[in-house]
Amino acid sequence: MSRDYRIAIVGATGAVGVEMLRVLERRNFPVASLRLLASPRSSGKTLTFRGKDVVVEPLQPSAFAGIDIALFSAGGSISKEYAPVAVESGAVVIDNSSAFRQHENVPLVVPEVNGADVAHHKGIIANPNCTTAITLMALYPLHKKFRVKRIFASSYQAVSGAGARALEELRLQVKAVANDLPIEKEIFPHQIAFNVIPQVDSFLDTGYTKEEMKMQNEGRRIMHLPTFKASVTCVRVPVYRAHSVAVSAEFERPVTLHEAREAINAFPGIELRDDTASRDYPMPLDYAGKDDCAVGRLRLDCALENGISFWVCGDQLLKGAALNAVQIAELL
Amino acid sequence: MSRDYRIAIVGATGAVGVEMLRVLERRNFPVASLRLLASPRSSGKTLTFRGKDVVVEPLQPSAFAGIDIALFSAGGSISKEYAPVAVESGAVVIDNSSAFRQHENVPLVVPEVNGADVAHHKGIIANPNCTTAITLMALYPLHKKFRVKRIFASSYQAVSGAGARALEELRLQVKAVANDLPIEKEIFPHQIAFNVIPQVDSFLDTGYTKEEMKMQNEGRRIMHLPTFKASVTCVRVPVYRAHSVAVSAEFERPVTLHEAREAINAFPGIELRDDTASRDYPMPLDYAGKDDCAVGRLRLDCALENGISFWVCGDQLLKGAALNAVQIAELL
Repeated sequence: MSRDYRIAIVGATGAVGVEMLRVLERRNFPVASLRLLASPRSSGKTLTFRGKDVVVEPLQPSAFAGIDIALFSAGGSISKEYAPVAVESGAVVIDNSSAFRQHENVPLVVPEVNGADVAHHKGIIANPNCTTAITLMALYPLHKKFRVKRIFASSYQAVSGAGARALEELRLQVKAVANDLPIEKEIFPHQIAFNVIPQVDSFLDTGYTKEEMKMQNEGRRIMHLPTFKASVTCVRVPVYRAHSVAVSAEFERPVTLHEAREAINAFPGIELRDDTASRDYPMPLDYAGKDDCAVGRLRLDCALENGISFWVCGDQLLKGAALNAVQIAELL
Repeated sequence: MSRDYRIAIVGATGAVGVEMLRVLERRNFPVASLRLLASPRSSGKTLTFRGKDVVVEPLQPSAFAGIDIALFSAGGSISKEYAPVAVESGAVVIDNSSAFRQHENVPLVVPEVNGADVAHHKGIIANPNCTTAITLMALYPLHKKFRVKRIFASSYQAVSGAGARALEELRLQVKAVANDLPIEKEIFPHQIAFNVIPQVDSFLDTGYTKEEMKMQNEGRRIMHLPTFKASVTCVRVPVYRAHSVAVSAEFERPVTLHEAREAINAFPGIELRDDTASRDYPMPLDYAGKDDCAVGRLRLDCALENGISFWVCGDQLLKGAALNAVQIAELL
């Protein structure tokens, strides 16, 4: 027996919120009713869902009455304030912020990796960090085969990971450079057009950024692997959409490329795209707007005993956010 | 007693050749005479040196008569053909191509690291790969202090590393995107505007590119460290000028950040720029056109026992090519 769900999207007008709408449509999610919630600034706007206009309402505690599933993507402080309210009203919250990702009672889920963890929820399920989710789509099948010990990774993160206004910031900066006008910056601390910025999120005392440590902290929870280590450098690049990550991974067991390729081919949601002879490998331009992630540049790591290096791309608004959230909702 | 040198530049009209001219000027290199050599296509063009016009001549064997130092930057095949001719004519060749970098009788030199090796030359001295030279400027002082075993690195390489026409290709592609016109590509195998390409140079059977293995192969020769291992992913990014590299380095001895900073501060040619509290770290935009490289994001590596992670930027046309070549000439 299937039923239809009363859905709310919190942060409906943001970069991820808009994608959540599109993903619900595209995957024919059984939606009985849809409530779009946002800040007072955005309420009154209209978004379309399945050909019908839906007016955006202001986020307030009463908005969760009668809601079955609330998809949150409006930042950590909004989640901390309103997710408990939504749960109290009887909704299950799927939260895209980092607010609850390390809470013991909150499963942190990539459906292809640890979908079964959804069963243990107490009202809130957390959606992982985008770079972590995309990396795990390639790493987890290799882990299942060879048991990962640690990784060294560097990211090439698209501007839309910082929201819809960051897209516009890059566009305007590119135009300003072309016309020799002064650069305006608001979202990023430095010019991003024709530059790369080795900082995503704020710094910890260790010198790593919060974003960088999510790979290890969230990776451990998602893979159920408390010994997993990840040394990461997260870098913003002037790409509109889709993140890329270069990874050197060390495993416990001996590795072969043949088995690695087989493991990836057998895993859902990730495409093996690795034909160096025809210069074919994943690039962000090709994976913007795609549900599937892709991995290429697979090679035996020349500085590790049981090591594999690879390059993975994925749309951080889809697998890194909206798609993964809706996939979690499908498991409910 | 100082003397003035009769200099030839082979590939004078290329991106690196033009920089060689500027560096010779800027550093007041004792130039007695200057001969600019290029392909027949470029000969007849005029470049200025110290306020005077110099006509570009066609490259031919007789062009090296009376030359003391020939700076080559016209690709490997030109170097292979003409460098021995120049040596035969009595010149010392400083070669920016990869043609001779692994020849036993050809010193491969970063002056700050192994300047003394210049003394052993037999007519040809090789200038290292740009990404390798820039990385070693940060790695070598740490190696001297802690003894490096291996590194894991990912590069963010500017388009001008692929020559002057690559700069124009990015510019035109950005314009085409803005006007919704088809993208034209000639230098890069894929669109580089608003994209990143995980391939620099051609692929080896191992799955690494030639560019990626230069870090290990050239690093071993320059540091006199045959056991050095480097697993690298080289990536082209839509930046006009200056390369960046994210590095996790493992050392034999215990490391401290205090000693690491001291070692870098005491090393010439590299700036420590590492104030995360004020979001200050090196970025390619700030190091385009600068002689000095810069290192930041220094931190104890969370996945290595004696490890340090860092981020280094440098102008690949200067320290990565023209500047390093002229510094070698200064050692002669």
